[in-house]
Amino acid sequence: MDIATIVGILLGFIVITTAIISGGGWQIFVHLPSVAITIGGMLCATLIHFSLPQFLGIFSVVKKTIVTKIPPPAELIQNMVNFAAINRRDGALALEQEINKIKDLFFVKGLQMLVDGQDPEAIRDLMSLEIENLRDRHSNGKKILEFMGAAAPAFGMIGTLIGLIQMLRSLDSPESIGGGMSVALITTFYGALAANLIFIPLAGKLGLYSKAETTAMEMIIEGVCAIAQGDNPTAIREKMQVFISQSRRENIKAKI
Amino acid sequence: MDIATIVGILLGFIVITTAIISGGGWQIFVHLPSVAITIGGMLCATLIHFSLPQFLGIFSVVKKTIVTKIPPPAELIQNMVNFAAINRRDGALALEQEINKIKDLFFVKGLQMLVDGQDPEAIRDLMSLEIENLRDRHSNGKKILEFMGAAAPAFGMIGTLIGLIQMLRSLDSPESIGGGMSVALITTFYGALAANLIFIPLAGKLGLYSKAETTAMEMIIEGVCAIAQGDNPTAIREKMQVFISQSRRENIKAKI
Amino acid sequence: MDIATIVGILLGFIVITTAIISGGGWQIFVHLPSVAITIGGMLCATLIHFSLPQFLGIFSVVKKTIVTKIPPPAELIQNMVNFAAINRRDGALALEQEINKIKDLFFVKGLQMLVDGQDPEAIRDLMSLEIENLRDRHSNGKKILEFMGAAAPAFGMIGTLIGLIQMLRSLDSPESIGGGMSVALITTFYGALAANLIFIPLAGKLGLYSKAETTAMEMIIEGVCAIAQGDNPTAIREKMQVFISQSRRENIKAKI
Amino acid sequence: MDIATIVGILLGFIVITTAIISGGGWQIFVHLPSVAITIGGMLCATLIHFSLPQFLGIFSVVKKTIVTKIPPPAELIQNMVNFAAINRRDGALALEQEINKIKDLFFVKGLQMLVDGQDPEAIRDLMSLEIENLRDRHSNGKKILEFMGAAAPAFGMIGTLIGLIQMLRSLDSPESIGGGMSVALITTFYGALAANLIFIPLAGKLGLYSKAETTAMEMIIEGVCAIAQGDNPTAIREKMQVFISQSRRENIKAKI
Amino acid sequence: MDIATIVGILLGFIVITTAIISGGGWQIFVHLPSVAITIGGMLCATLIHFSLPQFLGIFSVVKKTIVTKIPPPAELIQNMVNFAAINRRDGALALEQEINKIKDLFFVKGLQMLVDGQDPEAIRDLMSLEIENLRDRHSNGKKILEFMGAAAPAFGMIGTLIGLIQMLRSLDSPESIGGGMSVALITTFYGALAANLIFIPLAGKLGLYSKAETTAMEMIIEGVCAIAQGDNPTAIREKMQVFISQSRRENIKAKI
Repeated sequence: MDIATIVGILLGFIVITTAIISGGGWQIFVHLPSVAITIGGMLCATLIHFSLPQFLGIFSVVKKTIVTKIPPPAELIQNMVNFAAINRRDGALALEQEINKIKDLFFVKGLQMLVDGQDPEAIRDLMSLEIENLRDRHSNGKKILEFMGAAAPAFGMIGTLIGLIQMLRSLDSPESIGGGMSVALITTFYGALAANLIFIPLAGKLGLYSKAETTAMEMIIEGVCAIAQGDNPTAIREKMQVFISQSRRENIKAKI
Repeated sequence: MDIATIVGILLGFIVITTAIISGGGWQIFVHLPSVAITIGGMLCATLIHFSLPQFLGIFSVVKKTIVTKIPPPAELIQNMVNFAAINRRDGALALEQEINKIKDLFFVKGLQMLVDGQDPEAIRDLMSLEIENLRDRHSNGKKILEFMGAAAPAFGMIGTLIGLIQMLRSLDSPESIGGGMSVALITTFYGALAANLIFIPLAGKLGLYSKAETTAMEMIIEGVCAIAQGDNPTAIREKMQVFISQSRRENIKAKI
Repeated sequence: MDIATIVGILLGFIVITTAIISGGGWQIFVHLPSVAITIGGMLCATLIHFSLPQFLGIFSVVKKTIVTKIPPPAELIQNMVNFAAINRRDGALALEQEINKIKDLFFVKGLQMLVDGQDPEAIRDLMSLEIENLRDRHSNGKKILEFMGAAAPAFGMIGTLIGLIQMLRSLDSPESIGGGMSVALITTFYGALAANLIFIPLAGKLGLYSKAETTAMEMIIEGVCAIAQGDNPTAIREKMQVFISQSRRENIKAKI
Repeated sequence: MDIATIVGILLGFIVITTAIISGGGWQIFVHLPSVAITIGGMLCATLIHFSLPQFLGIFSVVKKTIVTKIPPPAELIQNMVNFAAINRRDGALALEQEINKIKDLFFVKGLQMLVDGQDPEAIRDLMSLEIENLRDRHSNGKKILEFMGAAAPAFGMIGTLIGLIQMLRSLDSPESIGGGMSVALITTFYGALAANLIFIPLAGKLGLYSKAETTAMEMIIEGVCAIAQGDNPTAIREKMQVFISQSRRENIKAKI
Repeated sequence: MDIATIVGILLGFIVITTAIISGGGWQIFVHLPSVAITIGGMLCATLIHFSLPQFLGIFSVVKKTIVTKIPPPAELIQNMVNFAAINRRDGALALEQEINKIKDLFFVKGLQMLVDGQDPEAIRDLMSLEIENLRDRHSNGKKILEFMGAAAPAFGMIGTLIGLIQMLRSLDSPESIGGGMSVALITTFYGALAANLIFIPLAGKLGLYSKAETTAMEMIIEGVCAIAQGDNPTAIREKMQVFISQSRRENIKAKI
């Protein structure tokens, strides 16, 4: 669970809402037709740009980005070192009961292949393919979010243009300019807020998250394949520590 | 037929039209001189930028993008595996009557060359050239749509400038500012809508579609050449499955 | 002669002029001081950015882009195949009287070197250098046009700022705002029109034209060198057809 | 300590403050709700884009950029040449008391490893890793500052939109337009000032500083490893001078 | 001396000044507080972005770009061919009195090394380093000018925001809007003019000039090293002509 994303979105909405309420007249900021033009128009443009499966996949990609907890590298290495020690002492079959303790499905899948006695090359090939597919989904999700971040302000401006044209058409006196213009600007506000508080930062987070998750997955592949080759726990720790910066490296020993 | 594109464009126009009608006075949004400046100006700029054949080709490229149905990979592989089995059992000539069942002209052409007894290298060379030409046409179409997406708002702004200059020139009283400004903004609205709902997303879809269609064509080349070499159905399935992600691979068998 | 460029510019001006005249008061759009600021400022900035020879060269580059007719590939191949046949039947000297029929100076130069008995390597070296120089001139012309396309709207905005500052300074009553603002906006209109109807599309056309002309020149080099080596007409046709897409290839034979 | 950064920020604020005070009514420019929207919104978006540790790290990266003094190359070379002479005359252990005179922690660490008798390869590996980590932190800090430089004006505009909508809603007479609009524009002013005077130039400085600091660190590695290999002072001077431009090279001799 | 740069800047200011004077009330365009905000703010941001030596170096880089005369290639080749002939006839020492006739310091330095009897490799190394340093200074100067071209309009906008906020705050009647707004827009005018007439085109010129000057320097290195190797004048002419386009090559012979 990425706290920063949730805290950022919540705090952002609190900041904006407070500013709106303290200024008075918050009712004007809740305007369903404006939501329809800005968000509806943006979704339609996204639907034209991408295919239906890509479009529908964005929600699960974002949800997983926020919800999924990437295991810290030290924990990953500790687990792998323990499993290597069990494997050397009791054999691969003894690992089977350890699998239940692991929550990360990718790790479970790798260990299961190990227990099933598959050779390291087969494990590496199959698991690498899964990383590549994940990277594709993430990169695709990033492109959709970036497109949404560009389309939302554009449709906000289109909504404001519609409102301005309608307001100016029936302009009787300068006094009546205020109300119409106020409503016309709501779509621009929606578009700017959606792009700058949601879509653009979320696309950035997805890119960083994609890098972190695929690095963790590469560490798991390296570890599982090393166990399958019968490496000793110390050699496995060394192999996995290549992925993390020196200052975070610890002298992890097997605890079994 | 790409449903998402059509649904997106239709929904987008429904959203915008509803917003216009519910605001009253939709008549003002239908303004032929404004269409002439925005769309006419954009078409002229496109004509200056590109050559006449490129310019005229864009319509057929877009139509084909929306209408053409790219065969799903599984169906392609199933067909190819069947044809390989027929080829091994009854010889290449027996494939001739299967050709009529295929709708994809590129696939038909490959099979016809196969039946005509051309060698795999000649088939690959000729068909690869066709992929390259298609990719050129698509990339050219994408560039034209992107240029249109930049030119439409620019000519929308030029139209609004013309309207503003004319309106301000004969400005007698602040009261008359509304009507003239309302008409002047129509061209900006047209330009923004055309760019953001049509040209920019369509250029994106054309890029994705180009990748999907050329991948399907590369699969067909790989399959037809493998049949021409006399590969068995299982080997052909393996060769064609390299193009699709692991999760979608199926254990397809020949049905003949 | 590139019809599309001329038609595009003419049609574009007709569309804009019609819009201006139908709106009434076209006189206001002809304003020499505004032309001086927008076009003069843009030319000065271009003079600062580029050197004098580059700046003066842009006019001849643009004129040649519009006027020069790139020979169609089929005609080029047909001519080259004929010359190869003449060369084999009557010797290189017999080609001399054919040279007068060719209008393309680059082709004439290549044939003259052939008749003069220069060896293929020398012909290729000298003619390749000329292609490179042309490509440099074109790429330089494209950069200047793109810079003009960015500078014109900038100086249009500078002109409008000058007009606004002067108009607002002596503002007595809101009624007088119209006329001054109307004149101030003319420079922005000039800048936007010059950039979007002339400079930006012309830079794009120059890029496409450069590619087409240098391809034709490369075909001529390939053909002339092949004749100098004594290749037969069929081999020359094959060599030159590599440059064009399959669908346009024809079974050209020597007509002599 | 980078004087230019501090002088630039101070002078910039003096210039802006003087302009505000001389224009009268500086009180209106201090508006806490506007700070909350612009800076608060920007910080929330940054929190969504980056992870919490990256976000918190930016303050220490910026502080170190301003405070840290990168030793001038000539001083670095002089020190290293002295140490090489001491090492050759009295042995590595004699260097131990020199370490206390060095303030740069990276230099101290290298010398300590030298005194401890580690071999050159180990010193180079460990110290190179530290450079890479520093480069990562700097590049990450640059990305955050650039994102802030883009987000600050965006939230400034969002704040102005909120202010405009509220002001226009309750618009009774044209006379009351001034005060509301004045307050609404404060957030745009904050966003533009924060981006152009702080975030964008600071991101640029961080990039230049990163290059300068890592070059100094690479010089230290080169020098310490050369001492560890037992090179003579002249050879060490030559090796370290490769990193600096010819005009700055001096004929440094050991002073011990 | 680059005439185009000086003519462009002078003509540009004449065009703008004429427009201002003919419109009446030029006094309003000379406003020192606006200069302080726009140019002062831009200089402060540049000081934060770059280091003090880089910042101070920009003036000399620009001055040299305008003042320095790059010797025409034909003159360079003629000189070098003459020196080669003298060298072969009378020996390197006879060149010493020719050095006084050369104004280009880089050329003088190369000839001096030649007379001093240094070997070609040493000459090439030392002189190449000087080219690299010059290229660094030019590329650095280009980056600073480009940053100034982006910062000037930004601080122009900041100045206009300050003016607008102050003007709107004390708005009593619509009539008083003119004067305040007129002054507020001056900073935007200054920023746009400085960027589009000075900084952006000058950055472009610096890039082109850098390429021309370093090419001339490379020709000098090639020529001096060839003389040092004892090449004959014809061989030297051939070596130096590789740097210029064929159409400009001349059959230069030694005149001694």
